[in-house]
Amino acid sequence: MRTYDKKNFPVAKIRRFLEPGPIVLVTSAHKGERNIMTLGWHMVMGFEPSLVGCYVWDENHSFSLIRRSKECVINVPTFDLVNAVIGVGNSHGPGVDKFEQFGLTAVEASKVDAPLIAECHASFECRLVDTSLINRYSLFVFEVVKAHVATSPRYPTTVHYRGDGVFMVSGRNISYRRRFKRANL
Amino acid sequence: MRTYDKKNFPVAKIRRFLEPGPIVLVTSAHKGERNIMTLGWHMVMGFEPSLVGCYVWDENHSFSLIRRSKECVINVPTFDLVNAVIGVGNSHGPGVDKFEQFGLTAVEASKVDAPLIAECHASFECRLVDTSLINRYSLFVFEVVKAHVATSPRYPTTVHYRGDGVFMVSGRNISYRRRFKRANL
Repeated sequence: MRTYDKKNFPVAKIRRFLEPGPIVLVTSAHKGERNIMTLGWHMVMGFEPSLVGCYVWDENHSFSLIRRSKECVINVPTFDLVNAVIGVGNSHGPGVDKFEQFGLTAVEASKVDAPLIAECHASFECRLVDTSLINRYSLFVFEVVKAHVATSPRYPTTVHYRGDGVFMVSGRNISYRRRFKRANL
Repeated sequence: MRTYDKKNFPVAKIRRFLEPGPIVLVTSAHKGERNIMTLGWHMVMGFEPSLVGCYVWDENHSFSLIRRSKECVINVPTFDLVNAVIGVGNSHGPGVDKFEQFGLTAVEASKVDAPLIAECHASFECRLVDTSLINRYSLFVFEVVKAHVATSPRYPTTVHYRGDGVFMVSGRNISYRRRFKRANL
Protein backbone atom coordinates (compact mmCIF):
# COMPACT_ATOMS: atom_id res chain seq x y z
CA MET A 1 0.00 0.00 0.00
CA ARG A 2 1.03 3.57 -0.61
CA THR A 3 2.88 5.42 2.13
CA TYR A 4 2.86 9.21 2.41
CA ASP A 5 5.81 11.54 2.72
CA LYS A 6 4.65 13.69 5.60
CA LYS A 7 5.98 17.00 6.85
CA ASN A 8 5.55 18.99 10.01
CA PHE A 9 2.22 20.85 10.02
CA PRO A 10 0.94 23.59 12.39
CA VAL A 11 -1.02 21.95 15.20
CA ALA A 12 -3.42 24.91 15.33
CA LYS A 13 -4.60 24.08 11.78
CA ILE A 14 -5.41 20.39 12.01
CA ARG A 15 -9.15 21.18 11.80
CA ARG A 16 -8.54 21.07 8.03
CA PHE A 17 -8.41 17.29 8.35
CA LEU A 18 -10.54 16.46 11.40
CA GLU A 19 -13.45 18.91 11.20
CA PRO A 20 -14.85 17.28 8.01
CA GLY A 21 -15.44 14.18 10.17
CA PRO A 22 -13.38 11.30 8.73
CA ILE A 23 -13.00 7.92 10.33
CA VAL A 24 -9.58 7.85 11.98
CA LEU A 25 -7.18 5.13 13.08
CA VAL A 26 -5.96 5.75 16.61
CA THR A 27 -2.69 4.11 17.61
CA SER A 28 -1.56 3.56 21.17
CA ALA A 29 1.34 1.90 22.98
CA HIS A 30 2.13 1.02 26.57
CA LYS A 31 4.81 -1.20 28.11
CA GLY A 32 5.56 -3.17 24.96
CA GLU A 33 1.95 -3.48 23.81
CA ARG A 34 0.61 -1.54 20.87
CA ASN A 35 -2.77 -1.33 19.23
CA ILE A 36 -4.84 0.35 16.52
CA MET A 37 -8.49 1.31 16.84
CA THR A 38 -11.02 2.61 14.30
CA LEU A 39 -12.76 5.69 15.66
CA GLY A 40 -15.55 7.85 14.29
CA TRP A 41 -16.66 9.92 17.27
CA HIS A 42 -14.29 12.84 17.60
CA MET A 43 -14.45 16.61 17.48
CA VAL A 44 -12.14 19.58 17.38
CA MET A 45 -12.37 21.48 20.68
CA GLY A 46 -9.88 24.31 20.26
CA PHE A 47 -7.08 25.79 18.16
CA GLU A 48 -4.51 26.96 20.72
CA PRO A 49 -4.00 24.71 22.50
CA SER A 50 -5.00 22.32 19.73
CA LEU A 51 -7.63 20.16 21.44
CA VAL A 52 -9.50 17.11 20.13
CA GLY A 53 -12.17 15.14 21.96
CA CYS A 54 -12.48 11.41 21.26
CA TYR A 55 -15.11 8.98 22.45
CA VAL A 56 -13.33 5.70 23.18
CA TRP A 57 -15.58 2.79 24.02
CA ASP A 58 -14.47 1.27 27.32
CA GLU A 59 -14.63 -2.30 26.02
CA ASN A 60 -11.93 -1.44 23.53
CA HIS A 61 -8.42 -2.66 24.36
CA SER A 62 -7.09 0.74 23.26
CA PHE A 63 -9.09 2.33 26.07
CA SER A 64 -6.72 0.98 28.71
CA LEU A 65 -3.55 1.53 26.65
CA ILE A 66 -4.45 5.19 26.11
CA ARG A 67 -5.61 5.70 29.65
CA ARG A 68 -2.44 4.25 31.11
CA SER A 69 0.05 5.80 28.66
CA LYS A 70 -1.86 9.12 28.45
CA GLU A 71 -0.92 9.33 24.78
CA CYS A 72 -2.07 8.33 21.32
CA VAL A 73 -1.68 9.17 17.65
CA ILE A 74 -4.73 10.08 15.56
CA ASN A 75 -4.08 8.95 11.98
CA VAL A 76 -6.25 9.96 9.01
CA PRO A 77 -6.64 7.11 6.50
CA THR A 78 -7.67 7.59 2.89
CA PHE A 79 -10.19 5.61 0.86
CA ASP A 80 -7.56 3.13 -0.35
CA LEU A 81 -7.23 1.97 3.28
CA VAL A 82 -10.92 1.12 3.68
CA ASN A 83 -10.17 -2.61 4.01
CA ALA A 84 -7.77 -1.92 6.89
CA VAL A 85 -10.30 0.45 8.47
CA ILE A 86 -12.97 -2.26 8.44
CA GLY A 87 -10.53 -4.98 9.49
CA VAL A 88 -9.22 -3.00 12.43
CA GLY A 89 -12.78 -2.23 13.47
CA ASN A 90 -13.69 -5.92 13.33
CA SER A 91 -10.78 -7.18 15.40
CA HIS A 92 -10.52 -6.65 19.09
CA GLY A 93 -8.15 -6.81 21.92
CA PRO A 94 -4.63 -7.92 22.52
CA GLY A 95 -3.19 -11.06 20.95
CA VAL A 96 -3.02 -9.84 17.38
CA ASP A 97 -0.64 -7.28 15.92
CA LYS A 98 -2.89 -5.20 13.72
CA PHE A 99 0.02 -3.54 11.95
CA GLU A 100 1.15 -6.93 10.65
CA GLN A 101 -2.34 -8.24 10.06
CA PHE A 102 -3.47 -5.30 7.95
CA GLY A 103 -0.19 -4.40 6.27
CA LEU A 104 0.29 -1.11 8.06
CA THR A 105 3.73 0.32 8.79
CA ALA A 106 4.52 1.72 12.25
CA VAL A 107 6.75 4.79 12.22
CA GLU A 108 8.30 6.22 15.33
CA ALA A 109 6.67 9.40 16.58
CA SER A 110 8.72 12.26 17.98
CA LYS A 111 6.87 13.25 21.15
CA VAL A 112 4.85 10.18 22.13
CA ASP A 113 5.49 6.44 22.29
CA ALA A 114 2.50 5.49 20.13
CA PRO A 115 3.50 4.99 16.48
CA LEU A 116 2.42 6.90 13.37
CA ILE A 117 0.94 4.89 10.50
CA ALA A 118 3.01 5.42 7.34
CA GLU A 119 0.06 4.63 5.05
CA CYS A 120 -2.13 7.40 6.50
CA HIS A 121 -2.28 10.88 4.99
CA ALA A 122 -1.94 12.70 8.32
CA SER A 123 -0.87 11.73 11.84
CA PHE A 124 -1.39 13.80 14.95
CA GLU A 125 0.63 13.05 18.08
CA CYS A 126 -1.57 13.58 21.13
CA ARG A 127 -1.25 13.85 24.87
CA LEU A 128 -4.22 13.17 27.13
CA VAL A 129 -4.86 16.44 28.97
CA ASP A 130 -8.16 15.74 30.74
CA THR A 131 -9.16 12.41 32.25
CA SER A 132 -12.16 13.75 34.16
CA LEU A 133 -14.71 12.95 31.44
CA ILE A 134 -13.62 9.39 30.77
CA ASN A 135 -15.85 7.70 33.31
CA ARG A 136 -18.89 9.85 32.62
CA TYR A 137 -18.75 10.08 28.83
CA SER A 138 -15.88 7.86 27.61
CA LEU A 139 -14.56 11.22 26.42
CA PHE A 140 -10.79 11.66 26.16
CA VAL A 141 -9.63 15.24 25.67
CA PHE A 142 -6.30 15.31 23.86
CA GLU A 143 -3.88 18.05 22.98
CA VAL A 144 -2.21 17.63 19.61
CA VAL A 145 1.47 18.23 20.32
CA LYS A 146 2.86 17.49 16.87
CA ALA A 147 1.25 17.09 13.45
CA HIS A 148 2.57 15.30 10.37
CA VAL A 149 0.72 15.82 7.08
CA ALA A 150 1.35 14.54 3.56
CA THR A 151 2.73 17.18 1.23
CA SER A 152 0.49 15.91 -1.58
CA PRO A 153 -2.43 15.77 -2.25
CA ARG A 154 -3.53 18.90 -0.44
CA TYR A 155 -6.80 17.31 0.64
CA PRO A 156 -7.08 13.55 1.19
CA THR A 157 -10.01 11.46 -0.02
CA THR A 158 -11.32 10.26 3.31
CA VAL A 159 -14.01 7.85 4.49
CA HIS A 160 -16.81 8.93 6.80
CA TYR A 161 -18.89 6.37 8.64
CA ARG A 162 -22.72 6.38 8.64
CA GLY A 163 -23.22 3.21 10.68
CA ASP A 164 -24.76 -0.02 9.32
CA GLY A 165 -21.59 -0.72 7.31
CA VAL A 166 -22.03 2.33 5.06
CA PHE A 167 -19.20 4.78 4.36
CA MET A 168 -19.48 8.17 2.69
CA VAL A 169 -16.41 8.97 0.60
CA SER A 170 -15.31 12.60 0.62
CA GLY A 171 -15.94 14.48 -2.62
CA ARG A 172 -14.94 17.84 -4.09
CA ASN A 173 -13.23 20.61 -2.16
CA ILE A 174 -14.47 24.10 -2.99
CA SER A 175 -13.08 27.38 -1.71
CA TYR A 176 -15.57 30.12 -0.87
CA ARG A 177 -12.87 32.11 0.85
CA ARG A 178 -13.76 35.44 -0.74
CA ARG A 179 -17.31 35.13 0.58
CA PHE A 180 -16.26 34.80 4.21
CA LYS A 181 -15.74 37.64 6.62
CA ARG A 182 -12.10 37.44 7.55
CA ALA A 183 -12.80 36.95 11.27
CA ASN A 184 -14.93 33.88 10.52
CA LEU A 185 -12.52 31.92 8.33
CA MET B 1 -35.27 26.89 -2.18
CA ARG B 2 -36.32 23.29 -1.88
CA THR B 3 -38.00 22.12 1.30
CA TYR B 4 -37.94 18.51 2.45
CA ASP B 5 -40.84 16.32 3.45
CA LYS B 6 -39.52 14.88 6.69
CA LYS B 7 -40.74 11.97 8.74
CA ASN B 8 -40.13 10.78 12.26
CA PHE B 9 -36.79 8.94 12.53
CA PRO B 10 -35.36 6.82 15.39
CA VAL B 11 -33.26 9.06 17.63
CA ALA B 12 -30.83 6.18 18.33
CA LYS B 13 -29.87 6.17 14.62
CA ILE B 14 -29.06 9.80 13.93
CA ARG B 15 -25.35 8.97 13.70
CA ARG B 16 -26.16 8.19 10.06
CA PHE B 17 -26.30 11.94 9.48
CA LEU B 18 -24.01 13.44 12.13
CA GLU B 19 -21.09 11.01 12.35
CA PRO B 20 -19.90 11.84 8.80
CA GLY B 21 -19.21 15.34 10.15
CA PRO B 22 -21.35 17.83 8.19
CA ILE B 23 -21.66 21.50 8.96
CA VAL B 24 -24.99 21.96 10.74
CA LEU B 25 -27.34 24.88 11.30
CA VAL B 26 -28.37 25.11 14.94
CA THR B 27 -31.58 26.96 15.72
CA SER B 28 -32.51 28.33 19.11
CA ALA B 29 -35.33 30.37 20.63
CA HIS B 30 -35.92 32.06 23.96
CA LYS B 31 -38.53 34.60 25.09
CA GLY B 32 -39.46 35.82 21.63
CA GLU B 33 -35.92 35.82 20.22
CA ARG B 34 -34.72 33.23 17.75
CA ASN B 35 -31.45 32.62 16.02
CA ILE B 36 -29.52 30.36 13.66
CA MET B 37 -25.87 29.46 13.98
CA THR B 38 -23.46 27.59 11.68
CA LEU B 39 -21.63 24.89 13.63
CA GLY B 40 -18.90 22.45 12.64
CA TRP B 41 -17.61 21.14 15.95
CA HIS B 42 -19.94 18.38 17.09
CA MET B 43 -19.78 14.69 17.86
CA VAL B 44 -22.07 11.79 18.58
CA MET B 45 -21.64 10.72 22.22
CA GLY B 46 -24.12 7.88 22.61
CA PHE B 47 -27.02 5.97 21.08
CA GLU B 48 -29.44 5.45 23.97
CA PRO B 49 -29.86 8.07 25.20
CA SER B 50 -29.04 9.74 21.89
CA LEU B 51 -26.32 12.21 22.91
CA VAL B 52 -24.56 14.85 20.82
CA GLY B 53 -21.80 17.18 21.99
CA CYS B 54 -21.57 20.65 20.42
CA TYR B 55 -18.87 23.27 20.86
CA VAL B 56 -20.64 26.64 20.90
CA TRP B 57 -18.36 29.65 20.93
CA ASP B 58 -19.31 31.91 23.84
CA GLU B 59 -19.25 35.06 21.73
CA ASN B 60 -22.07 33.68 19.63
CA HIS B 61 -25.53 35.07 20.37
CA SER B 62 -26.90 31.53 20.16
CA PHE B 63 -24.74 30.60 23.15
CA SER B 64 -26.97 32.55 25.52
CA LEU B 65 -30.24 31.56 23.82
CA ILE B 66 -29.36 27.88 24.11
CA ARG B 67 -27.98 28.19 27.61
CA ARG B 68 -31.09 29.96 28.86
CA SER B 69 -33.70 27.91 26.98
CA LYS B 70 -31.78 24.62 27.46
CA GLU B 71 -32.92 23.56 23.99
CA CYS B 72 -31.97 23.73 20.34
CA VAL B 73 -32.56 22.05 17.00
CA ILE B 74 -29.62 20.65 15.01
CA ASN B 75 -30.47 20.93 11.29
CA VAL B 76 -28.46 19.24 8.53
CA PRO B 77 -28.23 21.41 5.41
CA THR B 78 -27.40 20.10 1.95
CA PHE B 79 -25.00 21.55 -0.61
CA ASP B 80 -27.72 23.70 -2.21
CA LEU B 81 -27.86 25.67 1.04
CA VAL B 82 -24.16 26.57 1.03
CA ASN B 83 -24.91 30.28 0.53
CA ALA B 84 -27.13 30.29 3.61
CA VAL B 85 -24.52 28.33 5.57
CA ILE B 86 -21.86 30.95 4.77
CA GLY B 87 -24.25 33.86 5.27
CA VAL B 88 -25.39 32.62 8.67
CA GLY B 89 -21.77 32.09 9.66
CA ASN B 90 -20.90 35.64 8.62
CA SER B 91 -23.71 37.37 10.48
CA HIS B 92 -23.77 37.71 14.21
CA GLY B 93 -25.97 38.57 17.05
CA PRO B 94 -29.46 39.78 17.59
CA GLY B 95 -31.00 42.47 15.40
CA VAL B 96 -31.37 40.46 12.24
CA ASP B 97 -33.81 37.64 11.54
CA LYS B 98 -31.65 35.10 9.76
CA PHE B 99 -34.66 33.10 8.60
CA GLU B 100 -35.88 36.09 6.61
CA GLN B 101 -32.44 37.21 5.53
CA PHE B 102 -31.41 33.86 4.09
CA GLY B 103 -34.78 32.62 2.87
CA LEU B 104 -35.12 29.82 5.40
CA THR B 105 -38.50 28.63 6.64
CA ALA B 106 -39.08 28.09 10.36
CA VAL B 107 -41.30 25.12 11.17
CA GLU B 108 -42.67 24.45 14.62
CA ALA B 109 -40.93 21.64 16.48
CA SER B 110 -42.89 19.20 18.60
CA LYS B 111 -40.87 18.95 21.82
CA VAL B 112 -38.82 22.15 21.94
CA ASP B 113 -39.48 25.84 21.25
CA ALA B 114 -36.60 26.24 18.76
CA PRO B 115 -37.81 25.87 15.17
CA LEU B 116 -36.91 23.29 12.54
CA ILE B 117 -35.58 24.56 9.20
CA ALA B 118 -37.82 23.33 6.37
CA GLU B 119 -35.02 23.54 3.78
CA CYS B 120 -32.74 21.17 5.74
CA HIS B 121 -32.63 17.43 5.07
CA ALA B 122 -32.78 16.44 8.74
CA SER B 123 -33.67 18.21 11.99
CA PHE B 124 -32.96 16.92 15.47
CA GLU B 125 -34.81 18.41 18.44
CA CYS B 126 -32.43 18.58 21.40
CA ARG B 127 -32.56 19.20 25.12
CA LEU B 128 -29.47 20.35 26.98
CA VAL B 129 -28.70 17.60 29.49
CA ASP B 130 -25.33 18.67 30.87
CA THR B 131 -24.26 22.26 31.50
CA SER B 132 -21.16 21.38 33.50
CA LEU B 133 -18.76 21.51 30.54
CA ILE B 134 -19.91 24.83 29.10
CA ASN B 135 -17.55 27.05 31.06
CA ARG B 136 -14.54 24.77 30.72
CA TYR B 137 -14.90 23.66 27.10
CA SER B 138 -17.84 25.55 25.57
CA LEU B 139 -19.19 22.02 25.27
CA PHE B 140 -22.98 21.56 25.32
CA VAL B 141 -24.14 17.97 25.76
CA PHE B 142 -27.56 17.50 24.19
CA GLU B 143 -30.01 14.64 24.12
CA VAL B 144 -31.86 14.28 20.84
CA VAL B 145 -35.50 13.89 21.87
CA LYS B 146 -37.08 13.81 18.42
CA ALA B 147 -35.66 13.39 14.92
CA HIS B 148 -37.16 14.41 11.59
CA VAL B 149 -35.49 13.14 8.41
CA ALA B 150 -36.34 13.56 4.72
CA THR B 151 -37.81 10.46 3.15
CA SER B 152 -35.73 11.03 0.01
CA PRO B 153 -32.86 10.99 -0.83
CA ARG B 154 -31.65 8.36 1.61
CA TYR B 155 -28.33 10.15 2.10
CA PRO B 156 -28.05 13.92 1.74
CA THR B 157 -25.20 15.65 -0.09
CA THR B 158 -23.71 17.59 2.80
CA VAL B 159 -20.98 20.19 3.21
CA HIS B 160 -18.05 19.67 5.56
CA TYR B 161 -15.88 22.56 6.64
CA ARG B 162 -12.07 22.53 6.44
CA GLY B 163 -11.46 26.08 7.65
CA ASP B 164 -10.04 28.91 5.50
CA GLY B 165 -13.31 29.12 3.55
CA VAL B 166 -12.99 25.64 2.05
CA PHE B 167 -15.82 23.11 2.09
CA MET B 168 -15.63 19.45 1.25
CA VAL B 169 -18.79 18.18 -0.44
CA SER B 170 -19.86 14.66 0.50
CA GLY B 171 -19.41 12.08 -2.23
CA ARG B 172 -20.46 8.49 -2.83
CA ASN B 173 -22.05 6.24 -0.21
CA ILE B 174 -20.83 2.64 -0.27
CA SER B 175 -22.12 -0.24 1.79
CA TYR B 176 -19.58 -2.73 3.13
CA ARG B 177 -22.18 -4.25 5.40
CA ARG B 178 -21.34 -7.86 4.58
CA ARG B 179 -17.73 -7.27 5.61
CA PHE B 180 -18.59 -6.11 9.12
CA LYS B 181 -18.96 -8.32 12.14
CA ARG B 182 -22.55 -7.88 13.21
CA ALA B 183 -21.64 -6.54 16.65
CA ASN B 184 -19.58 -3.75 15.10
CA LEU B 185 -22.12 -2.34 12.66
